[in-house]
Order: sequence, then structure tokens, then C-alpha cells
Amino acid sequence: MHRISRDTITKDTTLCMSLSARPSNIGTRFHNFLYEELGLDFVYKAFTTTDLPAAIAGIRALGIRGCGVSMPFKEACIEFVDVMHPSAAAIDSVNTLVNEDGVLHAYNTDYEAVATLIADRGVDPASTVAVAGSGGMAKAVVAALRDNGFRAVTVVARNATTGRALAQRYGFAWRPELGDLRPRLLVNATPIGMAGGPGADDLPFDADAVAASEVVFDVVALPPETPLIRAAVELGRTVVTGAEVIALQAAAQFALYTGVRPTPDQVRRASEFSRA
Amino acid sequence: MHRISRDTITKDTTLCMSLSARPSNIGTRFHNFLYEELGLDFVYKAFTTTDLPAAIAGIRALGIRGCGVSMPFKEACIEFVDVMHPSAAAIDSVNTLVNEDGVLHAYNTDYEAVATLIADRGVDPASTVAVAGSGGMAKAVVAALRDNGFRAVTVVARNATTGRALAQRYGFAWRPELGDLRPRLLVNATPIGMAGGPGADDLPFDADAVAASEVVFDVVALPPETPLIRAAVELGRTVVTGAEVIALQAAAQFALYTGVRPTPDQVRRASEFSRA
Repeated sequence: MHRISRDTITKDTTLCMSLSARPSNIGTRFHNFLYEELGLDFVYKAFTTTDLPAAIAGIRALGIRGCGVSMPFKEACIEFVDVMHPSAAAIDSVNTLVNEDGVLHAYNTDYEAVATLIADRGVDPASTVAVAGSGGMAKAVVAALRDNGFRAVTVVARNATTGRALAQRYGFAWRPELGDLRPRLLVNATPIGMAGGPGADDLPFDADAVAASEVVFDVVALPPETPLIRAAVELGRTVVTGAEVIALQAAAQFALYTGVRPTPDQVRRASEFSRA
Repeated sequence: MHRISRDTITKDTTLCMSLSARPSNIGTRFHNFLYEELGLDFVYKAFTTTDLPAAIAGIRALGIRGCGVSMPFKEACIEFVDVMHPSAAAIDSVNTLVNEDGVLHAYNTDYEAVATLIADRGVDPASTVAVAGSGGMAKAVVAALRDNGFRAVTVVARNATTGRALAQRYGFAWRPELGDLRPRLLVNATPIGMAGGPGADDLPFDADAVAASEVVFDVVALPPETPLIRAAVELGRTVVTGAEVIALQAAAQFALYTGVRPTPDQVRRASEFSRA
């Protein structure tokens, strides 16, 4: 491994960063690990701000190369960018800014990762699908399903306002609960099963529905094996995990910033390091 | 030495930076060397910009702790700061910004360093003085002399407009050339003697004047021993070097950013590292 210490940072070192209300260390560790691993003259640091327009003006004026965008700035930043790429335009939500000589390009690598994983698993677009949730990740999932040609999609969300709005926007159905539906593809885009959350030990779908499905997709990334993924694996179902989504979206972000695509093994090790 | 590698940079690592039209590596290496040496969770990088107001807005919005300011931004940044400290107000020139929770404090550590060195050498304020030059460093020197109680000061500058204006502002005399003056303190604030410059091998004052002086002060820092300093040392005169100015101003900047005052030995080693 090519070791780089702070005393090798120069005026020419490229800075990448992130903006969120409550920064975690995951992005900072993920990107810096790969910069060292790949011998790239970059450095990454998470920031927060209470002045989004000025923060984005600073990214432009200081030539900061890239910026990961998290809650609550994913929609608010749209008015300050120059080019909305399809991945961001598809869901009106930005998680990645790339500064090309002062021109800010906006992407959503969560959307890209979800769309890629659905396509890669080879799920027949004629399949019936249920998506639990109506937040930001549910939007990425529903848009990715629509753009992969899926038509028989039901948004399952207790919140009638956001659930119905999300379903309508993409021409799908809405239900407050799964009820007697037995879709072939089940997608969890709620926080149920997330470590440390109130539903950490719960399943977002009945065990019956999991048993009746063929493919189970959980966007929850921590723990890497949620109760839903464990149940699906025990039943021999094909699974897509939240850890896969995070790794793929982070690798895409890394490639946009640096022009270098890390190998799957490098991404895996960087992900492990970032959570350690 | 406490070694810090990029994989120890976290969301909580404090960023300091510099802004100039043509960044060098000196500040980046000086500060990062001392962060490692002292085990401080800081990182430093030089930037340039073509949009000063947005760059300063970004410093504020991203919580960047400190910013060294070089040409051509030393005067232009004044309208964007919140508090002008006496060192910057004395010469209407800023070389250091400190961000205290979004309030930008402006200092000039060049001025502070020059004033401290003149006071430390114990030159009698009744001494006659000639200052060669009428640029930014000449302004810092002339203001520092005035504030140390010197009265018999002559600004020596070929440029009548800037030379006369500088002298008048601080109540001193102006001359286009030294002529038959034989001041006790000689200060060079021109680029004469600077490595790689057109007058690299020249003396800014006649050898006669150097011989007749008691103290010789050269603001030129590269080479550490200029032809003027060499001549003065050979004649047994007391000297103040540009390398001392740079080290003292950088240490003051470091202390303003971090709250930690490096030892003279640490400053010396950081200065050597920064020029290597």
C-alpha cells in the first residue's frame, strides 16, 4: 500500500469533501483509504454548514473537486448547480457534486447504484414489485424500477400523503399495507432493520411475503445482514443488500471525482475500513 | 515525531488554508510539519481563486479555521472581514484570517514580526534609519518603526509616487537615493538580493553605508544569507534576516490558528522542511 502522510500534502493536492447536517466519518475514511491505496494526490474531509449557498460558492471559488451531499441538502442544493445529470434529475435529488473548472455538475449515485443492482440481478421487468417506504431512498428505488421498465409496482407506505404522491409521480399504485399482495420482488426502503433504530429486530414485510417472493432488496446498510436479508437468505432467495448499494454508490462517486474506478476488492476493503 | 497519515483525517480535523494568486508549497509544508510534530488534528492546504468574495464566503460557511492571505488579496480582503486587529489596521493590509465561529478576524503577522524583531534587537529609537523600498513589506517596516518610537526615518525609493506617499503617511522623509546619508539602522525592503531575481548578487545599499551602520535588517528571506547580510556579518554588524521574519510571522500565524505556540527549535525545523 502506497502510504501518504500529511507532510506529502502540497498546494497541488486535490480536496474533495461532503456537506451534511450531521457528518459521519464514513465518507472521509472511505475516500482517504482509496487515495492512499491508489496513490492519488487527493484528500477528503466531511464538513457541515449553516449557509448552503455560501458553502457551494466556496466549493466553486476554491476549486474543491467534488462534494458528497447528504441530508438536508439533497434537494436544496439544486438551485445552485449548473448541470443536472439524468441520475439527479430522475429523482430531483443530488448526492454528488463535481466541479469541472467552476461548472458544478450534479449526480445521484444512490439512484445509479440502485438502478444498476436491479438490472444486474436480472429481475424480469414484468415481475410484480412492492416497495416499502416513501422517503428519499424509496424515491430512488421507484424511479430506478420505472427506468428499468417495471410496471407492476406498488408503493407500500403508512403515510398516505407521501406514499400516494410518490406512487402517482411514477405512475404506480399505493397501499398503506402490503395486505394479501405477494410480489415477486420485495424492496425495503424504510429504516426497519437498521442497527440502533426502533425497528432493528423487525421485518418490513411478513415472513409469508418473503417466502412467496423470488428476490429481496434491502436498502438498509447497517448491519450488513439485516433481519430481512437473513430471512431471505435462509429461504434461498436472491438478495440485494444495502451494503452493496453503499459500496457501489461510493465507488461511482470516487470515479466521478478522480477518474479512477477502484476494483471491487478495493471498494470492499475501503468499505470495511470506513465502518471500523 | 507523532506521525499522522491521511487515513487519520476525520470529519473533526480542522482545515487551515491560504489564498494567493500563485501559491507556493512553503505554508502547506510548514504548517503540516508542525501539526504532525505537535500531534494536532489539523490539515493545511494552499488554494488560489479568481473569486475572492466567494472564497471568503466559503471559509466562513465551511468553518475553515484560518487562512493565510498573500498577493494580490492582502488589501482586497479587508472589506470582507469582520474585525481588523491593530497589526492589520496599522498598515491596511491583511495576511492572516482567523475564523471564530463565523466571525472573521484579520491580522498582519508580517507587521508583528518586523515590530518584534526591531524591538528585540534593542535598537535605540533615536537612531537614524533608512528603509529601501516602497511596497508592502516597506509599509510593514515603516509602520513598525513608527510604532516602536523611531522618528529619524528616511524612505529610500526610486518610485517618487509610492515612496513619497509611504513616507508622508507615517510622517517620515523620502529620498530617491541614499546619497550621503549614513544611518545607524539600514533596512532593505526591496527584492534586491533575492535568489533568482534580477538583483540577486547586488547590495541595496553602498558598501560604505553598510560599513557606517550599526544594524542591518534585510527582509529578503531567500537565500537565508543575502549579499547584504553577508557583508554586514563580515563587518561585525548586528543583523536581522528575512528568514527570521518569515519564521516569526509563520509561528504567530500558527499560534493564532491552533492556540499552540511552537518552540523556536520546532519553528526552525519546520522552516527548513518547508523550503526543502
